[in-house]
Amino acid sequence: MVMRIDDLARQPGEWLRGTGPDNDIVMSSRIRLARNLAGRPFLTVASHKVRAELEVQIRGALDQVNLGAARMYVSLKEASAVDRQFLMERHLISRDLLNAEGDRGVAIAKEETVAIMVNEEDHLRLQVLRSGLQLHEAWKEIDRIDDELSTRLPMAFHAQFGYLTACPTNAGTGMRISVLLHLPALVMTRQIDKVFQALSRISFSVRGLYGEGTQATGNFYQISNQATLGKSEQKLIDDLSNVVPEIVKFERHCREKLANEQKTALEDRVMRACGTLRYARTISSEETMELLSAIRLGSHLSLLPDIAPRTINELFISTQPGHLQKHEGRPLSPQERDLARAGFIRGKLSEKLKNSP
Amino acid sequence: MVMRIDDLARQPGEWLRGTGPDNDIVMSSRIRLARNLAGRPFLTVASHKVRAELEVQIRGALDQVNLGAARMYVSLKEASAVDRQFLMERHLISRDLLNAEGDRGVAIAKEETVAIMVNEEDHLRLQVLRSGLQLHEAWKEIDRIDDELSTRLPMAFHAQFGYLTACPTNAGTGMRISVLLHLPALVMTRQIDKVFQALSRISFSVRGLYGEGTQATGNFYQISNQATLGKSEQKLIDDLSNVVPEIVKFERHCREKLANEQKTALEDRVMRACGTLRYARTISSEETMELLSAIRLGSHLSLLPDIAPRTINELFISTQPGHLQKHEGRPLSPQERDLARAGFIRGKLSEKLKNSP
Repeated sequence: MVMRIDDLARQPGEWLRGTGPDNDIVMSSRIRLARNLAGRPFLTVASHKVRAELEVQIRGALDQVNLGAARMYVSLKEASAVDRQFLMERHLISRDLLNAEGDRGVAIAKEETVAIMVNEEDHLRLQVLRSGLQLHEAWKEIDRIDDELSTRLPMAFHAQFGYLTACPTNAGTGMRISVLLHLPALVMTRQIDKVFQALSRISFSVRGLYGEGTQATGNFYQISNQATLGKSEQKLIDDLSNVVPEIVKFERHCREKLANEQKTALEDRVMRACGTLRYARTISSEETMELLSAIRLGSHLSLLPDIAPRTINELFISTQPGHLQKHEGRPLSPQERDLARAGFIRGKLSEKLKNSP
Repeated sequence: MVMRIDDLARQPGEWLRGTGPDNDIVMSSRIRLARNLAGRPFLTVASHKVRAELEVQIRGALDQVNLGAARMYVSLKEASAVDRQFLMERHLISRDLLNAEGDRGVAIAKEETVAIMVNEEDHLRLQVLRSGLQLHEAWKEIDRIDDELSTRLPMAFHAQFGYLTACPTNAGTGMRISVLLHLPALVMTRQIDKVFQALSRISFSVRGLYGEGTQATGNFYQISNQATLGKSEQKLIDDLSNVVPEIVKFERHCREKLANEQKTALEDRVMRACGTLRYARTISSEETMELLSAIRLGSHLSLLPDIAPRTINELFISTQPGHLQKHEGRPLSPQERDLARAGFIRGKLSEKLKNSP
C-alpha cells in the first residue's frame, strides 16, 4: 500500500487517538536517535552531491527494514510548504528538517508511530512516537529499527564518545527522550514551577508543544533529557519513566482539588471555553490552544460527556496553520486561517455530533 | 381582577415586549409628571401623620380614576426588599421611592404602562411607559389621567411658576420625558459622543439604564429633558420626538456600516456573546448586560434567527438582582445571584427553544 500525505490528513495516527496509558495527562512519549554514517562528512560540511548520495544510500537501507506495509517516504525537497508545515505540526519532522535545503526526506510508518528523518542535522534521525506513557515500548521499537539499520549502514561510533553527531550535545547515546504532558491543573493552582524545579535537578528540561524555543501554549509541556552523554539509554528511560508518574499523580491531585474546592469556577471556565469554541467566527491559534486546554481538562473530569476526548486531541493539531491549509486545499492568509479555524472547530464540536466517536 | 407583584413577575408588561415603533433601537418612551396637593406640606417637611393621610386621600382618588380592570396598588411600606427592588428594576418605581421611609406606594395598571407613585419626592408622580417611540401616545394617556385626578384632588399650581414641586428643578410642567435607546453600533464605531454633544446643545441629558448616576451598561442610553420650566409640555414632546428619529437613523446607518465593512468581526462578537451566555455557569450583571447588548444587536441584524427579540429584551430586566431573587423565591447572596443568573439565562436561551415565541 502506497501512503501519501493526504492519507495522513484524513486519518490521524496512533498518538493523536490518545489511547495510551495515562492519556488524560500524558499526550505522547517520544524517543529520537541521532545517527551518522561512518566515513561520510557531517551535513554541516557536505556538498550537494554528497547530500544527494546520502539520501539515496539511506533510502535503500530503509526499504529493507521492517516498518510494516503502510509506509511512505516524503521527499521534502519536492514537498510543498504546506505539506512540510503539516508534517512538522504532526511531529513527524523537526523544524530543522522543514527549514533545511537540498535533498532530504522522511520515512513514515506504523500509523505515524515511526518517523525516520534523512539529512536533518544528522544523516539519520530515528523517531518513535506513541500515545500516553509508553517509553519502554517506544524504546523496544526504536532499538529494533536501529539494530536493523545498523546491519545495513555503517554507523559512526567511537569507543569512548559513543555515537558521533554533527552537534556534540547529541553525542554519546544520540538519544533524546521526551514526554508531552497536559498540565492545566498544575498551572491553574500555580504548582507548575515546583515541577520545573524538580525536573531541572535531575537534568530534564521543559519546553512547549513544538520543542525548543516554543511557548507552552495550551498548558502542554514537553519534558526531555538535556544530556545524551554519560547515562545509558536504559538509565535515561528509567529516570523519565520514574518521574512522569509522580507528575501525573500531582496533576491528578490538583485536578481533584479544583473539582472539589472550586467546582463552579472550574465548570464555568470549561463551559465558557466550550461555548466560545462552538460559536466563534474567527479565532487565533493561541486562543484556540487555551480554550482546547480547558475543554480537554473538562472532558477528563467528565464535565463534557458530549465531546469525545479523541476529538479534542485531534483539534490541538488539526487547527494548526499547516493542517488548516491542508484541509482547505490551498494556502491561506493569517486572517483566512482564523476564519477557517473557527469554522473547522464549529464543525468538529457541533452539538449535533453528540456522543459521536 | 386583583393583581399582585407575583403576576408581574410571571408576565412582563407592554414595554418589555418591545413591539412599539422603532423598537430595534428605541426600547421605551416614558413621561412622568410631578404633582403635589394644594394646601398640604411637601413631603420634605411632612410628619408621619400627614404622610399617612396623604396616601389615604390619594388612594381614594386613584380608585375613581379609569385605569382599566387589571390594576394593583402596592404599599411599599409593607413590601419586602426584594419586591421593592423588583419594581425599581421594572421601572415602575423610582430609586427614591424604593429608599424612602414611611407610608408610600404605587398604583400599577394597563400592563405596566401606567404607574402612579404616591409619596415619592412629590405627593404624586404619574408615569406612562410604552415600548418603542410612543411619546405622543404616552402624552395623551398621562394627560387624561392627570385631568381625571385633578378633578378629584386639588393640585398645587401657581399662575406664574406652574405646578409646584418639592424640588424647584421639577417645577413648571413637572414633566420629565425620556426615551431609552439601545445604541451599540454608535458605541462600537465611536460616534456616540457626537450624539451626546448634539443632545446637550438642545438641553437634553443622557443617563444610564436606571437613571441618574447609573452607568450606560449594555449600550443603553436614557435621554431626557433637563428643564421643566419655560417650555410647554407639547414643545418638549415635539423636541424629543424630532430628535430621536435622527439618532435612530444614525444608529441604523452605523449598524449597516458594521454589517457591511466589519461583517466577520461583528458576527464573531455576536456569536461569541451567544456562546458565552448559553454556556457560562456564573456571570455578573455587568457582563450579562454587555453580552445581551451584543446579541440584541445581532438579533436585529438577523444574525440570530433562533432567539426571539422579546426574549432578549426581557433578559435585560429579568437578570437584574431583584428579578432573580423574585424568580428564585428567596434572597440570594451576590455569588448565588451570579450562579442563578447564568442558569436562568441558559434556560431562556437554550437551543432547544429554537424559534419559540
